[in-house]
Amino acid sequence: MTRHKLRIGLFGYGCVGQGLHDVLESSGFEAEIVKICVKDRSKPRRLPMERFTFDPDDILSDPTINLVVELTNDPAEAYRIVTTAMRNGKNVVTAGKTMVANNMHELIALQEQYGVSLLYEASACASIPVIRNLEEYYDNELLHAVEGIFNGSTNYILTRMQTGRVSYGEALGEARRNGFAEADPRLDVEGWDSKYKLCIITGHAYGIFPDPAEVFHLGINNISEDDIRYAAEKGLRVKLVGHVSKCGPDAVTGYVMPRFVSPGESLFHVNDEYNAVIAEAAFADRQFFYGKGAGGHATGCAVLSDISACTYGYRYEYKKRNQGRVKRFNSNHRMEIYLRYNREEDRHLFGFEEVTEYFCGTGFRYVKGVVNLATLFRNREAISRAGVFAVNTGRKVGGAAPCSFALQPEPQMEVATVEEKN
Amino acid sequence: MTRHKLRIGLFGYGCVGQGLHDVLESSGFEAEIVKICVKDRSKPRRLPMERFTFDPDDILSDPTINLVVELTNDPAEAYRIVTTAMRNGKNVVTAGKTMVANNMHELIALQEQYGVSLLYEASACASIPVIRNLEEYYDNELLHAVEGIFNGSTNYILTRMQTGRVSYGEALGEARRNGFAEADPRLDVEGWDSKYKLCIITGHAYGIFPDPAEVFHLGINNISEDDIRYAAEKGLRVKLVGHVSKCGPDAVTGYVMPRFVSPGESLFHVNDEYNAVIAEAAFADRQFFYGKGAGGHATGCAVLSDISACTYGYRYEYKKRNQGRVKRFNSNHRMEIYLRYNREEDRHLFGFEEVTEYFCGTGFRYVKGVVNLATLFRNREAISRAGVFAVNTGRKVGGAAPCSFALQPEPQMEVATVEEKN
Repeated sequence: MTRHKLRIGLFGYGCVGQGLHDVLESSGFEAEIVKICVKDRSKPRRLPMERFTFDPDDILSDPTINLVVELTNDPAEAYRIVTTAMRNGKNVVTAGKTMVANNMHELIALQEQYGVSLLYEASACASIPVIRNLEEYYDNELLHAVEGIFNGSTNYILTRMQTGRVSYGEALGEARRNGFAEADPRLDVEGWDSKYKLCIITGHAYGIFPDPAEVFHLGINNISEDDIRYAAEKGLRVKLVGHVSKCGPDAVTGYVMPRFVSPGESLFHVNDEYNAVIAEAAFADRQFFYGKGAGGHATGCAVLSDISACTYGYRYEYKKRNQGRVKRFNSNHRMEIYLRYNREEDRHLFGFEEVTEYFCGTGFRYVKGVVNLATLFRNREAISRAGVFAVNTGRKVGGAAPCSFALQPEPQMEVATVEEKN
Repeated sequence: MTRHKLRIGLFGYGCVGQGLHDVLESSGFEAEIVKICVKDRSKPRRLPMERFTFDPDDILSDPTINLVVELTNDPAEAYRIVTTAMRNGKNVVTAGKTMVANNMHELIALQEQYGVSLLYEASACASIPVIRNLEEYYDNELLHAVEGIFNGSTNYILTRMQTGRVSYGEALGEARRNGFAEADPRLDVEGWDSKYKLCIITGHAYGIFPDPAEVFHLGINNISEDDIRYAAEKGLRVKLVGHVSKCGPDAVTGYVMPRFVSPGESLFHVNDEYNAVIAEAAFADRQFFYGKGAGGHATGCAVLSDISACTYGYRYEYKKRNQGRVKRFNSNHRMEIYLRYNREEDRHLFGFEEVTEYFCGTGFRYVKGVVNLATLFRNREAISRAGVFAVNTGRKVGGAAPCSFALQPEPQMEVATVEEKN
């Protein structure tokens, strides 16, 4: 194969852009960053100002630039840059998960129409080569499920709360200072970032790219010390887990939400800003990939890997999509959850079908039982406003009824008393 | 990219061959196994006899067969099959680690000369896509070290001894019955299999393919219950680890030998027939890959992945080899080991430079201290005959002297007494 000489136009010079710059310099990889387009004219830069431009057209309309690397943190801007670059016949490498997840069908069509390559390994789990492996290695494997910890910032926060005993606010502050958090931390802690990654992973694992709006997500922003203590007493940890699995011959289901994990599970040992991906396959069995999920250098490595692949003419073939076996993404999926809540009307949002545990104490009340993801999805906006914390217990819920009891009659009186005390 | 229609000639129909057959059938992958060449005419087969042949030429000289899949367990036969197929212009997929590791330079030359592709993902760690990731993802990454558990059979034996409390002989029997062991189990338990895999991994991680004869290996065949007890008392586990790392600007060092691992290390949690690979990289930091390292289906998956890659015209580019930065493989490397032995002359084979612990009891004697790998390599044949058990403690040995004492004067008298008692 012939290697194409690379002349790169770079958009964005924040944490990842500078990380890429370091990685490129140290690797000795032959590529010239011709121009770097940034927005903020007043920010001090590590490089001489003649390397920078403020006009995207200086890159997008430069016929000598054959690769655009998009590392901004603005999805709307990223969309304009990436689609214009592709229309101008340039290959593109991006780390923009929001933009990729929200525009997948159009981005695939543009690749075909203009014969260009769009690579986005860095958009999912930073340093872990998850997309490339799904695309190239599991292309003919029957995957039962793909799941994992896809967001380094929330995993760092949860780790600090659970092992460092710091508060949520302190842990979030630390994550930001360490450069693990998105510019807007709500993207991380509310679960959006994990969801965009899940949508991209679903596309390469199953060939169907769900609209992120179809996918249920719940973050860790409402976690309390009661939840941390509950998990610790049971020897469990809380992790924010993205999950997608087969749920019928031509359908998959998926979601992002907190999950209890026990020491016997691989995810229990994935801490700090690390990410992990587990693929459950029919024949390859269980595979586990672990690596840094955040930080400029880790993400920069994934970007460099894509840049290098471009020099060899690499393109995603979207093999599973072309096989077309999975046709539907649905949320009709039963799971057992732990719900810590205060008001009875918030519990009703979850539509518990069975209840296996119920606890009510001073200022801390929880119920454990089986819900249907479809109900959670239907009530997702009310749930996100309710200030409750829900965790998938991870227990397999089959067709058979588990050891359970009806929540009625519930101790309404006592509950009311507790609420009055608060 | 155009996909080439596949007509496959298969050599070998043992555990992996049948595993591939199952995986192929279930995946719906479009490929026709035109002929299967086997040796044993008397063995009952799961398929009609007209699918089989006993003459390799029926495949190698059939111009309609464009892919040869080599899954025999005979390295000499594998070499003939693979080189002849390549000379006849056929792409080849093989799982033969012994053959690949011992003939790497010639196999690369043949690929170039005849414009064919030779893929061997299944030769290292079965289901874990280690070669493809090193080749495609870490192609510009500075790797400090690559190490892991490369042999499923020995890991299964060690796990059963350490957690199931069965004897070495029983555990080996179980591994064979489960289909995890090579036809000749010495390949597994003496460390040969891990070494061949290490050599292949070294080639794709660093671009240098060491001759297996240059690489020190020590297996688990001499492990005793004393060693298991020693590790358990310290909260450690013994794992057979292959390791390669940078040891200078243009040099790497490597070896296969038992290692003590603690619960804080990823490898501690890799049990049964599972394998794991850890890549320590300058920027991507620590990456960990985990999956089944033995068994027909797990290995069959890796073979299918290579078969599929062939349809897209994939070839290893040997990128690190072409970069040519690493020029030497050497064994000048200091490490701390635990050595359980009986005779003083066996201890001298290791040339301890420093001793940090010495223990002598009834029938059980060990010394812990720093040795140079070069000495072990020089005395490797005497060491393998000595019936001792040596374990890398994993402690980093720097230039500075650790807390140590000289072994002289040692309690020769007591030692002699113990020996007389035995």
